[in-house]
Amino acid sequence: MVKNLVLINGEIVEGEEGKVSLSDRGYQFGDCVFEVVPVYNGRSFALLPHMENFFNSVISVKIPGIYMVEELVSFHEELIAASGLENGEIYTQITRGEAPYALDFPEMTVPHLSMIVIENDREDLAAKQEKGVNLITEKDSRWLHCDINTLNRLPSVLAKQKARVSRAFDALFVRDDGKITETTESNFFVVKDDLIWTHPANNLILNSVTRRLIKERLAVDIETQVIEKAFDLEFALKAEEAFVAGPRCEIVPVTKIDRKFIADGQVGPITQKLVSEYKKFVLRECPRK
Amino acid sequence: MVKNLVLINGEIVEGEEGKVSLSDRGYQFGDCVFEVVPVYNGRSFALLPHMENFFNSVISVKIPGIYMVEELVSFHEELIAASGLENGEIYTQITRGEAPYALDFPEMTVPHLSMIVIENDREDLAAKQEKGVNLITEKDSRWLHCDINTLNRLPSVLAKQKARVSRAFDALFVRDDGKITETTESNFFVVKDDLIWTHPANNLILNSVTRRLIKERLAVDIETQVIEKAFDLEFALKAEEAFVAGPRCEIVPVTKIDRKFIADGQVGPITQKLVSEYKKFVLRECPRK
Repeated sequence: MVKNLVLINGEIVEGEEGKVSLSDRGYQFGDCVFEVVPVYNGRSFALLPHMENFFNSVISVKIPGIYMVEELVSFHEELIAASGLENGEIYTQITRGEAPYALDFPEMTVPHLSMIVIENDREDLAAKQEKGVNLITEKDSRWLHCDINTLNRLPSVLAKQKARVSRAFDALFVRDDGKITETTESNFFVVKDDLIWTHPANNLILNSVTRRLIKERLAVDIETQVIEKAFDLEFALKAEEAFVAGPRCEIVPVTKIDRKFIADGQVGPITQKLVSEYKKFVLRECPRK
Repeated sequence: MVKNLVLINGEIVEGEEGKVSLSDRGYQFGDCVFEVVPVYNGRSFALLPHMENFFNSVISVKIPGIYMVEELVSFHEELIAASGLENGEIYTQITRGEAPYALDFPEMTVPHLSMIVIENDREDLAAKQEKGVNLITEKDSRWLHCDINTLNRLPSVLAKQKARVSRAFDALFVRDDGKITETTESNFFVVKDDLIWTHPANNLILNSVTRRLIKERLAVDIETQVIEKAFDLEFALKAEEAFVAGPRCEIVPVTKIDRKFIADGQVGPITQKLVSEYKKFVLRECPRK
């Protein structure tokens, strides 16, 4: 049983005590960045690369840097130990802090750090990884800095909700020019001519730790390569395989988009290999205790 | 002296007690909409049109409607009376409420309403209305639903901050196609051939109460007309006059953009008339007690 604990500005407290002020700029303007770190077997996965992402986001929106990487690493370890979390995620967010109501901000706010524990047994995920999932497409109306993990997530909230109501796994964002970017919580990939295609890591997508792991390590391990080039829905539907990947969903095969099959609608061999390589990689990094 | 009171879900409490939960979706995803209602002489200005905007935003993001207009009107009156606010604003926001961490949302969340009091003596504003202000331009990287007053305001936060650092009044957003949309907190207008030009009320701007007032009433009163057509910076710099307008800044003449003068850099006669008509309109609606 995981204890309902949260970490606020370095202190672990009961979940109910995790309150924030109405004048916190995270609450008033979404003036905040976040990061989600997966936890397997009571150990955080790829914590340093995730913290690198987190610090990049912090710097991008000019939130004062008041914590060091080492401190955030300790906070993760302390919260995992105290809560007894075995499998799930640690969600961290840092807001610019409290200030009198105004869009522009004082030089010297005190950022507000909060971390919560998310439990997740991943059994449901494993079933999806075996059978594959379907996606719906949704117009990508998000702002033009999707490379930053900010709290401005309403377009993703509404798209994910639409996906759920449509009994789809997630919504696949498509920009006005017809190019697919990513889903609400993961990057999107297709396999063509045994090569893995995905959107370039620019301002329109999040270059997640999972995406980097696939590109720099797993693709090499299975003797293929990642091509970073934007493509449209027609290209995706004609591909040999498709999958989504992110820290929350690992790697999940996609067999249908907007109720149309990709290739023969089966989970493809390259995706299968990646799912299995990812799981092996995770177990090496986070072995059972 | 205005009392530091806030209204939470219908109850007025001391400001320090105005806390929200970490698992409030407003705090986690910016899953929230807001409205700002100006207060003059202890009376709210154009409360019903503002509430109409607020309800439109609530419906757009599918937050369950748990309050009626009459209740929100009462809340405004109660908070103004209890706090003793004479001149300033009442800021209202409603989040989707608390839920376990997930982008998609449960059907039955309980929305969380909070209202705060913002004091503002408007002396500084009057000086700006006399002399005019300068703007800087900024790439409009906001999402494609700027017609909704959501909490996803980070692009505006960063643009407003850049304006302040540049000693400008505000930042003027310019889309990729070169068209001016609006500023971080107001609509933008130019005067050409004695006609008032502004961006059409589509998904790229907020159709504020002030914008509607100018179009439907004040422009008619001073015998001109509002043309709703997008234009670029070159057009604006060649205009006869320019101004910004919104509930927080009323109507303020703009004399420079990116350090370049508009016309001869003086406050123009049509803008002056509008500033004065707006003030008269406000005083009729919110007379001194």
